[in-house]
Amino acid sequence: MRTKIPIRLGATLLALALASTALADDMEDYRAMFEPLPFLPPIPAGNSMTQKKIDLGAMLFFEPRISASGVISCATCHNPALGWSDRIGRAIGHAGQVGVRNTPTVLNSGFLTSQFWDGREPDLEGQALGPIQADVEMNMTLDQAIARINELTVYRTHFDAAFPGEEDPINAQNVALAIATFERTLNTPNSPFDRFLRGDDQAISDEAKEGMKLFADNGCVACHSGPVMSDGMFHRFEVPGSTDEGRFVVTADEADKFTFRTPTLRNVAVTYPYFNNGSVNDLRDAVNLMGEQMLGHEFSEPELDNLVAFLHTLTGEMPVVAVPALP
Amino acid sequence: MRTKIPIRLGATLLALALASTALADDMEDYRAMFEPLPFLPPIPAGNSMTQKKIDLGAMLFFEPRISASGVISCATCHNPALGWSDRIGRAIGHAGQVGVRNTPTVLNSGFLTSQFWDGREPDLEGQALGPIQADVEMNMTLDQAIARINELTVYRTHFDAAFPGEEDPINAQNVALAIATFERTLNTPNSPFDRFLRGDDQAISDEAKEGMKLFADNGCVACHSGPVMSDGMFHRFEVPGSTDEGRFVVTADEADKFTFRTPTLRNVAVTYPYFNNGSVNDLRDAVNLMGEQMLGHEFSEPELDNLVAFLHTLTGEMPVVAVPALP
Repeated sequence: MRTKIPIRLGATLLALALASTALADDMEDYRAMFEPLPFLPPIPAGNSMTQKKIDLGAMLFFEPRISASGVISCATCHNPALGWSDRIGRAIGHAGQVGVRNTPTVLNSGFLTSQFWDGREPDLEGQALGPIQADVEMNMTLDQAIARINELTVYRTHFDAAFPGEEDPINAQNVALAIATFERTLNTPNSPFDRFLRGDDQAISDEAKEGMKLFADNGCVACHSGPVMSDGMFHRFEVPGSTDEGRFVVTADEADKFTFRTPTLRNVAVTYPYFNNGSVNDLRDAVNLMGEQMLGHEFSEPELDNLVAFLHTLTGEMPVVAVPALP
Repeated sequence: MRTKIPIRLGATLLALALASTALADDMEDYRAMFEPLPFLPPIPAGNSMTQKKIDLGAMLFFEPRISASGVISCATCHNPALGWSDRIGRAIGHAGQVGVRNTPTVLNSGFLTSQFWDGREPDLEGQALGPIQADVEMNMTLDQAIARINELTVYRTHFDAAFPGEEDPINAQNVALAIATFERTLNTPNSPFDRFLRGDDQAISDEAKEGMKLFADNGCVACHSGPVMSDGMFHRFEVPGSTDEGRFVVTADEADKFTFRTPTLRNVAVTYPYFNNGSVNDLRDAVNLMGEQMLGHEFSEPELDNLVAFLHTLTGEMPVVAVPALP
């Protein structure tokens, strides 16, 4: 049943590899192939960013009582202490159940053009309500979650402030809007690489600069492009040990079988383990595997050293978030 | 088998109630019956407080990888968002198992003269390693926990800094010393009642002042005494629905059956639910039950109003703790 391996990726990589080889004859040419991370992602027209909404979103993000057990919040798997992820292979949720995929970091997720490994939600608003309802995660119905929030009467004030003029602001849609708004503040600007891109030649080491060139010249940048170094596209990739059919689960299109959305490389050094099943712990091993699978290329040991040094420069300034006092 | 109900408590209460009735004829007399909360608890001679040790302790407190699942840390049940407790009846730990007792807050726990509901550990150093090893909590052996810490190589630097000169600083004892040191910084000074005790007559409402008088005149202050409003003693108390034998489990002394150490009342308004099995959610209901069981006295509705108003003045300034970035 594993037919039709998409060939467009190979073509894109080849074109870009050729283009980059032709273009990149000095540092400025390489710089031009990357984009620094803005301080904020695009804010959707339907969900304006206000401080009150951010504050409410932070409360809901850290709120474990919207889980069936009362002890699992968004912050359980998207743990601020652990790069806003969990640093285990596959997520652990309700009653200790193990999920099927690795927890993606929330950091810079507002820049992604779709959410989840399989892109099944277009935006953070769509994503936010998923884990609440997943039986292996927080294991609630939205009605149950809203009922819990209503029990904690102080929330009414915060919903009123975040959604002024609404008669009945405590509802699932507003929960999603508030959490998504908070998440759009969780960005990591000013990484060494961003400072380098903005003109500070000394912001990254010579080793990292060599890694950047390898990253560009070998075509990694074809998929890991744009401000968060993800093209937002779905690419076929089979991680050792994984039987996950990826985006096929969403679209039932054979061409999507075993494809996953390109993950961001921002903060990749602190968001291990890697891949859809979290089976690779070490960044160097992950780079090696990507070379073999996506590029059909075995990087040398010095090349791996340089690529890893480059990837470490993508760790930005972590957002400073005070854990909110909940009702 | 439920013999020998200790009578010393009743005698103490009576003596104190008489004494307080005799003494407390103006506000200064009442003030003299209480103690403001110091900024720091006593620091034990064997565990000096240093910033490096506090920092390491914070990391370990938020470190989920010293649990078997990799997702449960001290901060899971002692959640900074929830008054450093969990606001559920009984703690939920490894694989969703439900423990037998309510999670006590870590706030001001350095002032307590023993730890756990049954006082089975004398200090925070003794307490810290308990939940790591409890099979319904983090479910690890100490050897496994130390092995996990050793895997995260960055910790070596932090242990070296916290325990300078030690050849092999990553060991269970130092984990306990560091966590206990961090916990001794989690205090809540400057509550309205503290400001009142220090001379600001306007810091608490008239209703709260009436509550304070009731609290003193009825003898609540007999057990809820000292800076954290706990005498550190064990008192018999059977909460509806509880079959927990309390300190008897530790001492096997019949006199200790169904006794529990007096919990702190500091921040009681934000550390619900109440009692050893967390069976009472509402502070007013808890006060009412205490009156009935401990004092044999049914408070009137206005008395309950005033007592609850008083207890709300015991909520202090929450410690501001940045969630540490873990390796």
